Amino acid sequence: MADGLATSVTLSLPEWLIAEISALPDALATPEEQMALVHRLADRNWREGGGGPFAAIVVDSATGALVSVGVNVVLDTGISAGHAEVMALALAQRRLGTWDLGDGRDLTLVVNWRPCVQCYGATLWSGVRRLVVAGEGPELEELTRFDEGPVVDDWAAQFEARGIAVTSDVLRDEALAVYRAYGDSTSTVYNARGTGPVESRP
Amino acid sequence: MADGLATSVTLSLPEWLIAEISALPDALATPEEQMALVHRLADRNWREGGGGPFAAIVVDSATGALVSVGVNVVLDTGISAGHAEVMALALAQRRLGTWDLGDGRDLTLVVNWRPCVQCYGATLWSGVRRLVVAGEGPELEELTRFDEGPVVDDWAAQFEARGIAVTSDVLRDEALAVYRAYGDSTSTVYNARGTGPVESRP
Repeated sequence: MADGLATSVTLSLPEWLIAEISALPDALATPEEQMALVHRLADRNWREGGGGPFAAIVVDSATGALVSVGVNVVLDTGISAGHAEVMALALAQRRLGTWDLGDGRDLTLVVNWRPCVQCYGATLWSGVRRLVVAGEGPELEELTRFDEGPVVDDWAAQFEARGIAVTSDVLRDEALAVYRAYGDSTSTVYNARGTGPVESRP
Repeated sequence: MADGLATSVTLSLPEWLIAEISALPDALATPEEQMALVHRLADRNWREGGGGPFAAIVVDSATGALVSVGVNVVLDTGISAGHAEVMALALAQRRLGTWDLGDGRDLTLVVNWRPCVQCYGATLWSGVRRLVVAGEGPELEELTRFDEGPVVDDWAAQFEARGIAVTSDVLRDEALAVYRAYGDSTSTVYNARGTGPVESRP
């Protein structure tokens, strides 16, 4: 009898972020304003110790209305899937009551780098119509030592083929500044396989 | 003020599965026994209407002790990330109290096909040391009309390079029978982008 099995799991934002949610603006009109919030949350997130230097938000593509905020909560929650994109997308779906964020809406996911392979898929299946990233390329892995996993070379075209428009290079230097500060710190780079320092992204 | 934002999300197994958890065996000694359970849960899952025809379990690699069970809960929960692998991995992490299933353990994820691109990444970051799948190839998409997303061609080698051993073709025909029954049914194939019948995997 397998009585001890878990039957549910709850993913919560960290206390520091919950405490400031009521002070966040209702809307962020430009991609730069949106990304500036993402960078600020990402930077605070690793300093608070609950997860890596990653944050994401979902906004209305036309008005910039804030639908959800997420940060990486892997260490806080003990759940390795708790990346910033998964949190932002799931919290948007919970708020709107649908697994399809594209059902009658045009929403945008704003993230501080090209998603890792898990979150690449999470974005594909979420229903968002647009993805805005601060950048792409090897700098994230080089500066932080996180593994992002193997993503197909034509990743942006694969999004576009599925009706998801991609915009890159929004406040890119500011993203790198966050990763550099993280990489220069004494924060552990967590590693789910114990085979070296460059293996996992919490 | 963004007061209406959600701050947590809970992913639960469906009631029918919770009801039978205490009747599941403590351990399943062989890959075939493990996969037979996965197929049974996957088949019941789509018939119950809470998600697609997908299930996954985490077992101890040496003893076959059952650590967690998961099914696709996208429709039940309204969360698009709620795939079977994400559920099984997260519930194993919750039960064991760690985001790293490989920390002092050798655990295996057993799934009824090669994971979609999201769950490919979720598996990478989970700490499992082994992945057992019923099969790989285009049959899943052809029979069910789900999109699995773009996964790199050397997906198994990429797992192996990160210390995750891959075994395929365990009860493959039985997997196809589940997908065929699903595809022949009147179940909707859910679509997060509204661009056709072949776009998303709930």
